[in-house]
Amino acid sequence: MSTPATARETSSRSSVVERLSAMLEQDLAAVETLLNAKAASPVDIIPAMSEHIVSAGGKRLRPMITLAAAQAVGTANPSTHSLAAAVEFIHTATLLHDDVIDESDLRRGKPAAKSIWGNSASILVGDFLFARAFTLMVETGSLEILDILSNASSVIAEGEVRQLAAQGKPDLPTEDYLAIIEAKTAALFEAAARAGAISGGGSDHAAALASYGKNLGLAFQIVDDVLDYGGTTSVIGKVVGDDFREGKITLPVIIARRRGRAEDQAFWARALDLDKQEEGDLARAIHLIRTTGAAEATIAEAEAYVGLAKSALSSLPDTPWRALLSELADFCIRRVS
Amino acid sequence: MSTPATARETSSRSSVVERLSAMLEQDLAAVETLLNAKAASPVDIIPAMSEHIVSAGGKRLRPMITLAAAQAVGTANPSTHSLAAAVEFIHTATLLHDDVIDESDLRRGKPAAKSIWGNSASILVGDFLFARAFTLMVETGSLEILDILSNASSVIAEGEVRQLAAQGKPDLPTEDYLAIIEAKTAALFEAAARAGAISGGGSDHAAALASYGKNLGLAFQIVDDVLDYGGTTSVIGKVVGDDFREGKITLPVIIARRRGRAEDQAFWARALDLDKQEEGDLARAIHLIRTTGAAEATIAEAEAYVGLAKSALSSLPDTPWRALLSELADFCIRRVS
Repeated sequence: MSTPATARETSSRSSVVERLSAMLEQDLAAVETLLNAKAASPVDIIPAMSEHIVSAGGKRLRPMITLAAAQAVGTANPSTHSLAAAVEFIHTATLLHDDVIDESDLRRGKPAAKSIWGNSASILVGDFLFARAFTLMVETGSLEILDILSNASSVIAEGEVRQLAAQGKPDLPTEDYLAIIEAKTAALFEAAARAGAISGGGSDHAAALASYGKNLGLAFQIVDDVLDYGGTTSVIGKVVGDDFREGKITLPVIIARRRGRAEDQAFWARALDLDKQEEGDLARAIHLIRTTGAAEATIAEAEAYVGLAKSALSSLPDTPWRALLSELADFCIRRVS
Repeated sequence: MSTPATARETSSRSSVVERLSAMLEQDLAAVETLLNAKAASPVDIIPAMSEHIVSAGGKRLRPMITLAAAQAVGTANPSTHSLAAAVEFIHTATLLHDDVIDESDLRRGKPAAKSIWGNSASILVGDFLFARAFTLMVETGSLEILDILSNASSVIAEGEVRQLAAQGKPDLPTEDYLAIIEAKTAALFEAAARAGAISGGGSDHAAALASYGKNLGLAFQIVDDVLDYGGTTSVIGKVVGDDFREGKITLPVIIARRRGRAEDQAFWARALDLDKQEEGDLARAIHLIRTTGAAEATIAEAEAYVGLAKSALSSLPDTPWRALLSELADFCIRRVS
């Protein structure tokens, strides 16, 4: 296991993502090189779209989890770099397809790729990056890793189909919501952490890190879903309401509806039907989520998963990496306010 | 190598596809079992859509090439079955995405899956089947096969993106057309044959079978493209004109335009611009393709690739399988009239 020499050099006041990025600087640089190399194509639009979505955005959270998982139980090596790049490509491919499905024109505050290059190119370049992810995984030389990630990929698609079928149905049971986000979001975090451990040489800790990844992914998505209604406070400049406008049923809505009066329940039933949404509905939805305490209850649910993620780390060797993974779980919740 | 006992039992007057199907009966049955098993999902819409597109349609041409390639140089075995099923899933996933991209409402004369379940479900179930293809390939236990098919998959997507960029551009050079169909169609035939040979235990013949597959794929697509204008004769009941209505530039158009008078060239430039297509344009296009001899010239080009496919087989052991693969190449051309 390589000693994280930069750990003491970085200020404790910088965010855990910044400190992890600093400690993983060389590994992340290797991953970036792979991302650029594997997005290369003689067909100009492919690297252009990849650059737009891969290079321009994102915290590289999933590759970072893969690399930190490997370091926490062994050593991040060239195979781990290929795996981490593959995980990011799978994530990117799903973003390109999600933009088409959600009919969203913005992604991370910038125009979505499909707004610039069109739906067809977004579908095809998503397919290209997904195929490249598997080429990268072949480079790990591990059929076990390929199995983990190909299974996670089909689970992600299943989760997205379930989410599609649940759109506009405000009586979605909490358990179904959790099953959807476990598939569409947590499965990739789980696979990234599990495969990272295996790739780093720490297969004995793969199950623990898988549990960490899954629970972190659940917390991450739940927090994302409450942020889409402004969290517990109005954050100026933050774009809200995407889920609402798409009729996506998320935990804050489920809880607010459950706790609401009869007329509020009628409101949710109408307002989440895309054909019947009216001006001012989003403001009322946010108001109901605040006044019923649904925002706090949603965050409490996320906190429970953060707790599970952190306890899953208890069997790991006591290293700075373990401490940082634990802090990373806390960071999920701090995004809310 | 297993002896094809059924070879003499089937009539020489039945088509080569029927005879290959008979000889590969047990192998194809194993592939069907895998296709059904791997399309299974607790999310109902997934097996329903898979059933619609996988079970209901297609000649299983690509799996048949994989299996016959394995038999021609070794033995089709459980790994070959997983590979053949993976190849069919990759093909099916591209069909689901193509339907969304081409905005086509029909597929093999039936309503396209996206006409029934919508664009979003088509994208996601395509992704699901693509992921399942890689799970199937993991079952082959061969990183070499995974490498071949993941590379082919990215080449297919590249070809589709190039085709998209070429839409409505009637001055597309022949070489660019050939590069597009080599990527979008021939790459999967090539990979199916190459990986089939490797999986069957005949790696020494993999390059020859790859060449066979590539040239067969080129011939197959060229024939498909002339059939979309009715081939050399009007075939009653055959749906024609899809490519024309989508502004796809294919070989019959390239040749007819090259050989046309000035006013014909102006016609092609206008009529392939989707915003300017008029009633009666398709009839005129078919007329020009016939009168300039472009249909025959296109078929001659396909015949050249059939010839290359057949010569690629010369280094293979002299078996009934080799003879059938050779006949299968001839079958491509016979589809025209």
